[in-house]
Amino acid sequence: MIRIAVDGMGGDFAPREIVKGAESVSRDGLASIVLVGDVEKMKPHLTENVNLDMVHTPVFVEMHESPSVALRKKRDSSINRAFELHKKGEVDAVVSAGNSGATMAFAIFTLGRIPGVDRPAIATIHPRIGDGLSILLDAGGTVDCKPTHLAQFALMGNAFASSVLGIDSPRVGILSNGEEETKGNELTRDAHALIKEFRLNYLGYVEGTDMYNGRTDVVVSDGFVGNIALKISEGVAELIFEFFREGIRKSLKAKIGYALLKDIFKEFQKKADYSETGGAPLLGVDGVSIICHGKSNAKAMRNAILLAKKFVEKGLRQSIGETMQDHYQSMQKVKEK
Amino acid sequence: MIRIAVDGMGGDFAPREIVKGAESVSRDGLASIVLVGDVEKMKPHLTENVNLDMVHTPVFVEMHESPSVALRKKRDSSINRAFELHKKGEVDAVVSAGNSGATMAFAIFTLGRIPGVDRPAIATIHPRIGDGLSILLDAGGTVDCKPTHLAQFALMGNAFASSVLGIDSPRVGILSNGEEETKGNELTRDAHALIKEFRLNYLGYVEGTDMYNGRTDVVVSDGFVGNIALKISEGVAELIFEFFREGIRKSLKAKIGYALLKDIFKEFQKKADYSETGGAPLLGVDGVSIICHGKSNAKAMRNAILLAKKFVEKGLRQSIGETMQDHYQSMQKVKEK
Repeated sequence: MIRIAVDGMGGDFAPREIVKGAESVSRDGLASIVLVGDVEKMKPHLTENVNLDMVHTPVFVEMHESPSVALRKKRDSSINRAFELHKKGEVDAVVSAGNSGATMAFAIFTLGRIPGVDRPAIATIHPRIGDGLSILLDAGGTVDCKPTHLAQFALMGNAFASSVLGIDSPRVGILSNGEEETKGNELTRDAHALIKEFRLNYLGYVEGTDMYNGRTDVVVSDGFVGNIALKISEGVAELIFEFFREGIRKSLKAKIGYALLKDIFKEFQKKADYSETGGAPLLGVDGVSIICHGKSNAKAMRNAILLAKKFVEKGLRQSIGETMQDHYQSMQKVKEK
Repeated sequence: MIRIAVDGMGGDFAPREIVKGAESVSRDGLASIVLVGDVEKMKPHLTENVNLDMVHTPVFVEMHESPSVALRKKRDSSINRAFELHKKGEVDAVVSAGNSGATMAFAIFTLGRIPGVDRPAIATIHPRIGDGLSILLDAGGTVDCKPTHLAQFALMGNAFASSVLGIDSPRVGILSNGEEETKGNELTRDAHALIKEFRLNYLGYVEGTDMYNGRTDVVVSDGFVGNIALKISEGVAELIFEFFREGIRKSLKAKIGYALLKDIFKEFQKKADYSETGGAPLLGVDGVSIICHGKSNAKAMRNAILLAKKFVEKGLRQSIGETMQDHYQSMQKVKEK
């Protein structure tokens, strides 16, 4: 059975919600769980007869602690212990809702990177018009990027979309301010010149609208732009739903209308709800690592663990490794430029 | 009466929709219009008895022409003739739905910049949760920005929000990937250090969600990020409405629900529809210039012309001039750094 280490102390609602989420996966026999953290603090939230492995460490990284300080001073923290288990091959994946900067730092430090990857990227999966799902990367892993980083993100996103989402020849684009080659900024112009050389189904520049209209499978950006893109999306959805809530409060007719449309509202919210997806993989580290929303509840944790399981089953790590190897020559040429 | 030059040849539906929009403003006596363009091509779309001034030039810039080529070879184009009228004081503003890069290039070339402004910015106005409106700048005017450019955008956005939207002490923030000072990229970190020195109601970093949740009045970004932010917003709204359309197609219950909620759907679409706003001002050039969506119809043009009129009445140009002057000392210090 696939074995997953869960950081029991990471997240705004840790350890309670984390333990409950992990327990539910274990109880249903879907994966074998190792809870890492302060056993005295985690235990009260566990049901007696559930069979869960625990690894004890009293140290954990606070939510707003500096990642670089944590990296120096908290090697014994729950998150790093989880990565150490992964490194030793005792688990197949690590899931954490803790400090995402520290999670990334320890993932790189302890697991290392897949050969050919200079910087890892967080990939998010989101709905789009029509069938299927699209990927955005980087959603905030690497803020200041070089062109070679974006080029590597394109390769990793391609591997992710084909291995995990099962998309044959994924359509990959760089997020830009227009489709023409004359658009883009310094970073995207240089990245574009590099990615053109790869054997990818590469669309060139795509616009913000293409993230959701089904035209692209993989949207590539630096972590700064990607994070803004995600938060803007959240903001617009919230604006629209608040506008409807306001209208519904004011009118009986609208209240009845809402009652009849409720299923669709619910369905969309389910589609857009991060707790349904659970988390986002950190691509490029030599293992499977899922970064969850700090506000994750038990349901979100459960889904994140199941996502990790799926990534292990689909061979995400191997797929990225092979893609990077396949493009090793082109990447070397690129770096010499 | 306020006098506005309209580029009769700019836009996907020029000259027909442009002429009709301009005519409707003139007919209602709301502004005095000068239509600039090929008279033979514009005339067929004019109603006989409408009193409109026209300035003839057979040259115009195509929608996808290179702005730098247009700038060299098309000084006689309708858009530049319109700016020349403005420069000579014969009109108070210029409105165009044509090639926005060329419009910007000619605006800078012919009108010049307001002292203290190095790069102009396009400011867009958008709805938010609760009352009022928020501003985003730059929405695509200046793609590769330096920290001083963002600092100037903050000042111009502040002037725009107070003079045109009547907001007392507007809350200004830099769009970033998180609120903490440790977030941001190289550009925003340096811009943040500069803007802190100004006498502004400055919030520091704001996130994508803050564009729409009512926490900020003015959101500052470079033109690359701003343009992506706008297009992502369009994409999310389209995704949500398409999801509802799909659900409504499939279910009678939902059809009835939609009929009852129709007013709210319509109201939101009106709120989000660019043709209701009409266009976005190009801030920082020494005059009033409105850039419209290429797909503008008569209604959008009418609204853009009325927007230009409002900007003239509210003294937008003077307000930006005064703000830049007020902060001249701080800007000089900033530039020396």
